[in-house]
Amino acid sequence: MIRVSVAGATGYMGAEVLRYLCRHSGVSIKYLTSERYAGKEFSQVFPNFKGILDIKCYELNHEALINESDIIFLALPHKHSMQVVPELMKEKKKIIDLSADYRIKDHDAYQHWYKENHTDIDNLKEAIYGIPELNRNEIINAQLVANPGCYPTGAILATAPLVKNQVVYFDNIVIDSKSGVSGAGRKLDLIYHFSEVNENITAYQIANHRHTPEIEQTLAILAGEKICISFTPHLIPVNRGIFTTAYLKLKKNIETGELIEIYREFYKGEKFVRVLGENELPATKAVFGSNFCDLTVRVDKRTKMAIALSCIDNIGKGGSGQAVQNMNIMCGFDEIIGLESIPIYP
Amino acid sequence: MIRVSVAGATGYMGAEVLRYLCRHSGVSIKYLTSERYAGKEFSQVFPNFKGILDIKCYELNHEALINESDIIFLALPHKHSMQVVPELMKEKKKIIDLSADYRIKDHDAYQHWYKENHTDIDNLKEAIYGIPELNRNEIINAQLVANPGCYPTGAILATAPLVKNQVVYFDNIVIDSKSGVSGAGRKLDLIYHFSEVNENITAYQIANHRHTPEIEQTLAILAGEKICISFTPHLIPVNRGIFTTAYLKLKKNIETGELIEIYREFYKGEKFVRVLGENELPATKAVFGSNFCDLTVRVDKRTKMAIALSCIDNIGKGGSGQAVQNMNIMCGFDEIIGLESIPIYP
Amino acid sequence: MIRVSVAGATGYMGAEVLRYLCRHSGVSIKYLTSERYAGKEFSQVFPNFKGILDIKCYELNHEALINESDIIFLALPHKHSMQVVPELMKEKKKIIDLSADYRIKDHDAYQHWYKENHTDIDNLKEAIYGIPELNRNEIINAQLVANPGCYPTGAILATAPLVKNQVVYFDNIVIDSKSGVSGAGRKLDLIYHFSEVNENITAYQIANHRHTPEIEQTLAILAGEKICISFTPHLIPVNRGIFTTAYLKLKKNIETGELIEIYREFYKGEKFVRVLGENELPATKAVFGSNFCDLTVRVDKRTKMAIALSCIDNIGKGGSGQAVQNMNIMCGFDEIIGLESIPIYP
Amino acid sequence: MIRVSVAGATGYMGAEVLRYLCRHSGVSIKYLTSERYAGKEFSQVFPNFKGILDIKCYELNHEALINESDIIFLALPHKHSMQVVPELMKEKKKIIDLSADYRIKDHDAYQHWYKENHTDIDNLKEAIYGIPELNRNEIINAQLVANPGCYPTGAILATAPLVKNQVVYFDNIVIDSKSGVSGAGRKLDLIYHFSEVNENITAYQIANHRHTPEIEQTLAILAGEKICISFTPHLIPVNRGIFTTAYLKLKKNIETGELIEIYREFYKGEKFVRVLGENELPATKAVFGSNFCDLTVRVDKRTKMAIALSCIDNIGKGGSGQAVQNMNIMCGFDEIIGLESIPIYP
Repeated sequence: MIRVSVAGATGYMGAEVLRYLCRHSGVSIKYLTSERYAGKEFSQVFPNFKGILDIKCYELNHEALINESDIIFLALPHKHSMQVVPELMKEKKKIIDLSADYRIKDHDAYQHWYKENHTDIDNLKEAIYGIPELNRNEIINAQLVANPGCYPTGAILATAPLVKNQVVYFDNIVIDSKSGVSGAGRKLDLIYHFSEVNENITAYQIANHRHTPEIEQTLAILAGEKICISFTPHLIPVNRGIFTTAYLKLKKNIETGELIEIYREFYKGEKFVRVLGENELPATKAVFGSNFCDLTVRVDKRTKMAIALSCIDNIGKGGSGQAVQNMNIMCGFDEIIGLESIPIYP
Repeated sequence: MIRVSVAGATGYMGAEVLRYLCRHSGVSIKYLTSERYAGKEFSQVFPNFKGILDIKCYELNHEALINESDIIFLALPHKHSMQVVPELMKEKKKIIDLSADYRIKDHDAYQHWYKENHTDIDNLKEAIYGIPELNRNEIINAQLVANPGCYPTGAILATAPLVKNQVVYFDNIVIDSKSGVSGAGRKLDLIYHFSEVNENITAYQIANHRHTPEIEQTLAILAGEKICISFTPHLIPVNRGIFTTAYLKLKKNIETGELIEIYREFYKGEKFVRVLGENELPATKAVFGSNFCDLTVRVDKRTKMAIALSCIDNIGKGGSGQAVQNMNIMCGFDEIIGLESIPIYP
Repeated sequence: MIRVSVAGATGYMGAEVLRYLCRHSGVSIKYLTSERYAGKEFSQVFPNFKGILDIKCYELNHEALINESDIIFLALPHKHSMQVVPELMKEKKKIIDLSADYRIKDHDAYQHWYKENHTDIDNLKEAIYGIPELNRNEIINAQLVANPGCYPTGAILATAPLVKNQVVYFDNIVIDSKSGVSGAGRKLDLIYHFSEVNENITAYQIANHRHTPEIEQTLAILAGEKICISFTPHLIPVNRGIFTTAYLKLKKNIETGELIEIYREFYKGEKFVRVLGENELPATKAVFGSNFCDLTVRVDKRTKMAIALSCIDNIGKGGSGQAVQNMNIMCGFDEIIGLESIPIYP
Repeated sequence: MIRVSVAGATGYMGAEVLRYLCRHSGVSIKYLTSERYAGKEFSQVFPNFKGILDIKCYELNHEALINESDIIFLALPHKHSMQVVPELMKEKKKIIDLSADYRIKDHDAYQHWYKENHTDIDNLKEAIYGIPELNRNEIINAQLVANPGCYPTGAILATAPLVKNQVVYFDNIVIDSKSGVSGAGRKLDLIYHFSEVNENITAYQIANHRHTPEIEQTLAILAGEKICISFTPHLIPVNRGIFTTAYLKLKKNIETGELIEIYREFYKGEKFVRVLGENELPATKAVFGSNFCDLTVRVDKRTKMAIALSCIDNIGKGGSGQAVQNMNIMCGFDEIIGLESIPIYP
């Protein structure tokens, strides 16, 4: 049994990692940390776990974390991970970091978007960006995986086949994303107050959301050149789900069916990406509570645009599900262990 | 491998049975029937199953059903099951009927509440009412299980310890239930139209809901005498979940802690009933997508009432989850196989 | 023009008072106070008012409040009102207090339920409980109106005709209420976080909610004797609306039609109470955004109970709407001025 | 008093027209038609109107409609309006048509997108497209107003200042809209079933939605040349509200503040368009139940795009509110009569 710990266990991301790990046949859960709920049993904080995971949460103690764990999920706020990672790396622990700290390879860009100096540039170089469908071979041998952001996961998976196959122009890519509220975590803020969100549709951080450089960096690698996107996130009154609509200018006339074939080829053999055909459209409900990404593409003949559409559960494939998928790859497990649950519908 | 079929697979109840069965290690899914979607693949009707259960649905054919199956789930509308059950019984098939047809032992009461003669009284006598926490020993050897209604499951589990232990009076029991919308199934009706349900709270079938005699029948057995309840269902804008609030007059002064002890004793060893303590209250979210029933009880000292509170997922423990639990008991499986998933939160 | 001010203008109750007052032909809005948003324009805090009410909010200043106003709405937290009322009373201002401070005539009961001594017993004696349908004649001449709580408004209007007409027993009254989230105001708390409330049904403050004595006090006056109720509030994922289901034991056999006649007689001429007939049931959506209370009653013949059902908008008739109705009565306006808007549907 | 009638009164659009008209001081409501609910009182179909509008609905009778009315709202399905309009025009009645029948000037385009020949080309030529902010002078003297679609209203108001002022390129305009469910009306369909919509985000009619030519036609007039847009509608689990996000390539470097000034200038004096500043973003909740359109614009410097954002209530400014605004203009009333209600928040 591989010993697993979760730092920051009592946020939505941490709890979702544990929801998968509790039903994973190859790991044992050892050590949970929580700043706010240290001293409480995990199931007192998340009552869905009552009778299933009743162990206590502790304040983050590096030594205990190291001694108890073979692999560690860091579900900490941004900037906290890079305080912990260096020591864990030294002790040869495997790490899956769900924060943004190790995602942006260009530390100037990190500083620009996150308004903070990066303090662990050595490990930043080592970190592998954890989208298995793109980087599986690097993840297999990674010691440190930077687990992608929720919006980037949806946006990158939606557009990667178009970019990689050079069928679209790389300027003027528009990515319009609609997210459920759980992506914002459990922290209190008026904008996440039920009465404010319910029966409301809003946009936020227009032209300056931090996930922008993460999407650009990954697409640029696929494109083989710099890419500049316009990304706009919206807040939708659902708990889970990100619907991404991406608009890309096609280089040539092409049929929807041909584009879908390109997607099917690109994602051949992938267990968690489901390419939908010409008569199906994705819906966040169809991936609710799971690690699936459902996606498809359409040609708008009138404007010569490709419209790519993807759906993920923002704390499934958009976070904790993908983190467990990465763990499975890093540890040599079958990729779907712990992630077998079928999406809940309705 | 036990061969399992589902008649009426494309309603919410049928699909939820399949969601559990797909991840059940001891069964193989053989034959799905659907009146409306015959000829379609199951995953075309429920896109969450894409790549998981892509087999075709057929019109209900008795012979095929019998030849393909060892055990059969009937997720048919009321009055349809009793057309199918007699033949299946003759062929010695095991049956779990999710309709109301075999729940009410008194066929006059059935006729009174369901406005139809019962046409299969012989098998009605054989049927076992499938709440494992009350009738496990009979279910083990049952050939035909009448799977309980969603409201009755929540109401009976909430009040059974009080009734069985004779700590309350049996007249004037009030049961006020709040249900999500999926309990009404996938059929179209203005009252389930999104714009009508959303931002709305309503009650329906005041003093005449068909689940009333089902609750009374089961509580009467526990009480050892006739019981008459006042039951009122409400429609709440959530997909899943029934919250039951039951009000019962106490026979004597008693503390909340003592009542909770009675509940703990009553449900000792049960894997799917979680009795909450004095500092915890149930929430439907904590059982979402699962077969759990979370419950507790409080004493209202001022009025000498016991207030019993329970939460279930109406298509989990309130339907398909319980049906799979019954199958596990009838087939000798561990009771939780296929039902291991942790409730999804948030 | 009567000069009106609102203390505590930037909570949901204060804002809703202003929504009605802005369209009231007989008043001019003078002075708004806000602890948290002093210095901001009101429409910066509530963007729906942009271009309609852009005046600034101030910290509460007694002198300014007195100088600027003929009538004052206090939408302050409990215990704050009784710091302000004495001075306003001395200056002969008319006051409508939306807090609980002047609702409970028995100051020992106030202390028991609100855990605080009452510091203004003189004015407590003077205050009129502001349900116009019961106390219109006293409200006409009142200087200080204690505006009712949201749950009490729904519960009292639902049951008053039964109690007043002595057709039910006064012990064993059960009141089960389902409320939207805006009743909790705009304050931040994990239990009102969108992801926690959405797709959830919960109950809270079982057998100890502070609105209990308020309901009992008012019903006792109607009954002519002490009344003890069991009251349970539930939290429902809607913004606005309280659905109240009340269960009362009938003294004699009576038909639903006869009970409805009693209701029609009791509420004859009332503009904001709509008694529904035997073929209609109330729905919170039908009163959304308005000062209406829709209600009806049914006989459960099997259990000899009357089941009374009422719907209000918790910040309409359950708060600010009723407050404006009270103002209209106190100032000699037609009762519906400012309250003419038709409920929004869907 | 001007005599007003509504054909198709019992859909959401018809009912919303009546919600405004009931509180309009200059009109009297005469004649309501309903195909499905003929013979019923209007308030039996929409319980929010109980005691306010209890008159009966009739089957559509041309003669009655003509005799009873000075001005007529047609809230009929597409293709039905052009059966009724010719006769009403002959009788010199004023007409506001909420269907699409008279919106598209090019009848070939109408045939292409609506799959039906246009049968009333003469009146099509006369019809004025009813966005008052663009066409007020024509509306004043119009006999027939084609009331705009909900998506076009949001999209056109969001982008008109950019297009009119020639600050953007006219190819590659992307319009991504998110709509509440009431826009689909009260008709039953699985895709509007509560359990299917709730906790779901979807897109539909990718690259082929019928509102596309309507947006293009109006923007082309402003641009002075042909415009081709890519329009994608999304379905969001709210009752009311359309959030439009439009992406347009800027011709030159410009600051957000300058663009906002262009918007302020363009909408100067408009009572129902509120231009938000650099520190405010629109939210559908801020216009809920009203005829307002809140909008703003941002420059994405990195991609040289203008991102325009608008919010409307889809059956307010996106339909019935705008229809009443048009009536006010056609009849010489102050534009805001009947539309004074402040948006409901929360």
